[in-house]
Amino acid sequence: MSHLQQSFAVRFTYNVFFTEKLFKSTNPLLADFFTQQSSELRKKILFVIDSGVADAHPDLLTDIKAYFAQLTDRVELVPELIVIPGGEISKNDPALVEQLVDAVDRHGVDRHSYIVAVGGGSVLDMVGYAAAISHRGIRHIRIPTTVLSQNDSGVGVKNSVNYRGKKNFLGTFVPPVAVFNDRDFLITLDDRDWRAGISEAIKVALIKDSLFFEWIERNAEALAARDMETMDYLIHRCAEMHLEHIAGGDPFEMGSSRPLDFGHWSAHKLEQLTNFELRHGEAVAIGIAMDCLYSQQLGWLTDADTNRVLKTLRTLGFSLYQPMLDADESKGVLKGLAEFREHLGGQLTIMLLQGIGKGVEVHEIDAAKVRWSIATLKEQEPTAESQLV
Amino acid sequence: MSHLQQSFAVRFTYNVFFTEKLFKSTNPLLADFFTQQSSELRKKILFVIDSGVADAHPDLLTDIKAYFAQLTDRVELVPELIVIPGGEISKNDPALVEQLVDAVDRHGVDRHSYIVAVGGGSVLDMVGYAAAISHRGIRHIRIPTTVLSQNDSGVGVKNSVNYRGKKNFLGTFVPPVAVFNDRDFLITLDDRDWRAGISEAIKVALIKDSLFFEWIERNAEALAARDMETMDYLIHRCAEMHLEHIAGGDPFEMGSSRPLDFGHWSAHKLEQLTNFELRHGEAVAIGIAMDCLYSQQLGWLTDADTNRVLKTLRTLGFSLYQPMLDADESKGVLKGLAEFREHLGGQLTIMLLQGIGKGVEVHEIDAAKVRWSIATLKEQEPTAESQLV
Ligand SMILES: NC(=O)c1ccc[n+]([C@@H]2O[C@H](COP(=O)([O-])OP(=O)(O)OC[C@H]3O[C@@H](n4cnc5c(N)ncnc54)[C@H](O)[C@@H]3O)[C@@H](O)[C@H]2O)c1
Ligand SMILES: NC(=O)c1ccc[n+]([C@@H]2O[C@H](COP(=O)([O-])OP(=O)(O)OC[C@H]3O[C@@H](n4cnc5c(N)ncnc54)[C@H](O)[C@@H]3O)[C@@H](O)[C@H]2O)c1
Ligand SMILES: [Zn+2]
Ligand SMILES: [Zn+2]
Repeated sequence: MSHLQQSFAVRFTYNVFFTEKLFKSTNPLLADFFTQQSSELRKKILFVIDSGVADAHPDLLTDIKAYFAQLTDRVELVPELIVIPGGEISKNDPALVEQLVDAVDRHGVDRHSYIVAVGGGSVLDMVGYAAAISHRGIRHIRIPTTVLSQNDSGVGVKNSVNYRGKKNFLGTFVPPVAVFNDRDFLITLDDRDWRAGISEAIKVALIKDSLFFEWIERNAEALAARDMETMDYLIHRCAEMHLEHIAGGDPFEMGSSRPLDFGHWSAHKLEQLTNFELRHGEAVAIGIAMDCLYSQQLGWLTDADTNRVLKTLRTLGFSLYQPMLDADESKGVLKGLAEFREHLGGQLTIMLLQGIGKGVEVHEIDAAKVRWSIATLKEQEPTAESQLV
Repeated sequence: MSHLQQSFAVRFTYNVFFTEKLFKSTNPLLADFFTQQSSELRKKILFVIDSGVADAHPDLLTDIKAYFAQLTDRVELVPELIVIPGGEISKNDPALVEQLVDAVDRHGVDRHSYIVAVGGGSVLDMVGYAAAISHRGIRHIRIPTTVLSQNDSGVGVKNSVNYRGKKNFLGTFVPPVAVFNDRDFLITLDDRDWRAGISEAIKVALIKDSLFFEWIERNAEALAARDMETMDYLIHRCAEMHLEHIAGGDPFEMGSSRPLDFGHWSAHKLEQLTNFELRHGEAVAIGIAMDCLYSQQLGWLTDADTNRVLKTLRTLGFSLYQPMLDADESKGVLKGLAEFREHLGGQLTIMLLQGIGKGVEVHEIDAAKVRWSIATLKEQEPTAESQLV
């Protein structure tokens, strides 16, 4: 008996650009990117676009074609721009993944070509997955169009689709080759999607950076009023913190620790229980509230700090109670704990707070304390009446 | 406009063990492996087994169950051992991937659990793919049972399935967490599979290590006579060279260079043209012969060295001509060049020889020279008659 030991490291490098009017001929960013991808060969580029974005930006497809018409020396745009349904639905339908794989085949998109996804986190997750498995991985460019995808999902290394209703059951860890955050897309978001992504910034601030939380607290009203400069800073700082977290830790999540999943164990279950009626970011806002109240019961978060978090979330316009929280326990939110552990694997590991800006992991969750948090949120929820006042 | 730069490296480490009687209670290797995977939690283990192996080793399933019955403190064997059809057919059927994903779901196999594949390169490729996409990657253990998978495919970082007849169209780069090469499996291989894997050793020797080629040349008769000690050395050295190549270069093949694909451009096409009647290793033997003859025409490989290679391949029992080589050119082996480039992406990059042990890349292939190589192989092929002499 003998053995050989294998050990190697693979380096991944990519830029996240912040820009506006990405596809106007006056914006050189994309053109420069392809120029710098030195190569003797013209690369193909396959675009996949979120229908919600295409609808809200009727000139988008024309703009993309015009932009690439100027770059024919460097890259070859696949003339068929593929538009797929936006939102979680895109992750639920295996036929969409197949449609993309077929397009890769039909258009001869090889591993040194590019698949570009333009859309919200759902479409990016799905297209990223199709790109990752085709030819063992085609270069993938993300153009996130929601707050959530610009500050969190779009800058990270994960992709996935749902399988038989199980959230993110299939997926891979594969970084993009570039991310282009164009602020102009955000203008057409509806209020729910504008707001939803802010909860991921609150999440990362609460576990890592009290100054950033204080900034969000001070600017909650401006954010709720859709002030664009304020949003610019929020997205930039939040994206930066996500990037640093990924690079500094365990990028492909081989261990059990997943600090960025603060507030997420109940959120994932709530999304499913509401049939994805609740947006991911809306569910995360509730999950954050729950885990703050849980931390308060442990004596880890002061009453004052707990209230600051709840108040900030409410100022932003989040509802912090959802009737499904009270669903029969056999299928309710507490069942999400087991599913969360199973999906992540290893020991149950839940992030809580020992103060604002200081996340701490625990490996046990007490059902009674969860129930108390739910009851508190229910009690505090403004009734329809008082909301009218 | 501004940007953030992301850069991180991910390290992958695993051992390739050489052993025998892996599932006998007297062999501590697997037990020790699971003991060393320190964890507070018992991990689940899902076995997926090549039907060809299960048929040839009727005690295998019982042995596996008995072995893990002793380890219940550390690991929990999923009681359903899944047997799937062996051979290329396992990569052609999407229902098999789905069957495995469903088993992951049904048995609650999480990301810190293990999926173990026991079988030839085809089954390992397919199971590795299912493991890689489930929960964004479940830990994968390979137990290769053919010469080819023990010395090449099983020790590497690639997995894949075919898609609509296109070889390896879907797949990922994900290393295993351990590989266990058990020599006893090789005893039941039929002669074709015993022989087929040897061509990968000749391939790696020809491009990197003339001494290893000379060793194979000297030992070709012993290998053809199925001498086990000789095979042990061949597999060990070939696995070692593959591991070194992967670690030393571009493990996830982000560039265009793929030296280990020497002899493979025509091989992949031949496999497809013969409806996978030809084994991968048998096709590679023909591909090596073709590219040696091509190198000879360039004046890069001496006549004497070219003949040494062809003679070694023939002593091992390989046929170096296949009627499909002469297929109508519109769908023949030359078409494989374009498909090869498309699958790998980037510039056409083909490895040739500038001497035994010295691979050199070219970016153009001349059709006339390919045709001459084919004609030569056809002419030299012993007829059925002369083989009977
Ligand atoms: N991969 C990761 O690391 C990660 C991290 C967090 C969340 N996610 C996933 O992201 C998804 C949520 O993404 P999301 O919050 O961006 O929502 P979303 O992608 O589901 O989009 C919500 C809606 O907004 C529309 N839309 C998108 N951009 C628009 C625009 N500019 N103008 C008008 N409408 C637009 C879409 O068509 C859709 O109807 C979830 O599936 C979640 O699991 C992934
Ligand atoms: N992932 C990689 O890096 C890589 C590299 C090279 C080849 N491959 C792939 O590997 C596959 C070929 O693998 P292979 O040559 O091992 O053949 P195989 O897996 O197709 O198996 C050939 C036959 O042998 C049977 N078999 C397997 N083990 C046996 C045993 N111990 N006793 C009796 N029968 C046994 C199988 O059931 C099958 O019928 C191809 O699909 C090829 O593309 C992958
Ligand atoms: Zn989230
Ligand atoms: Zn091979």
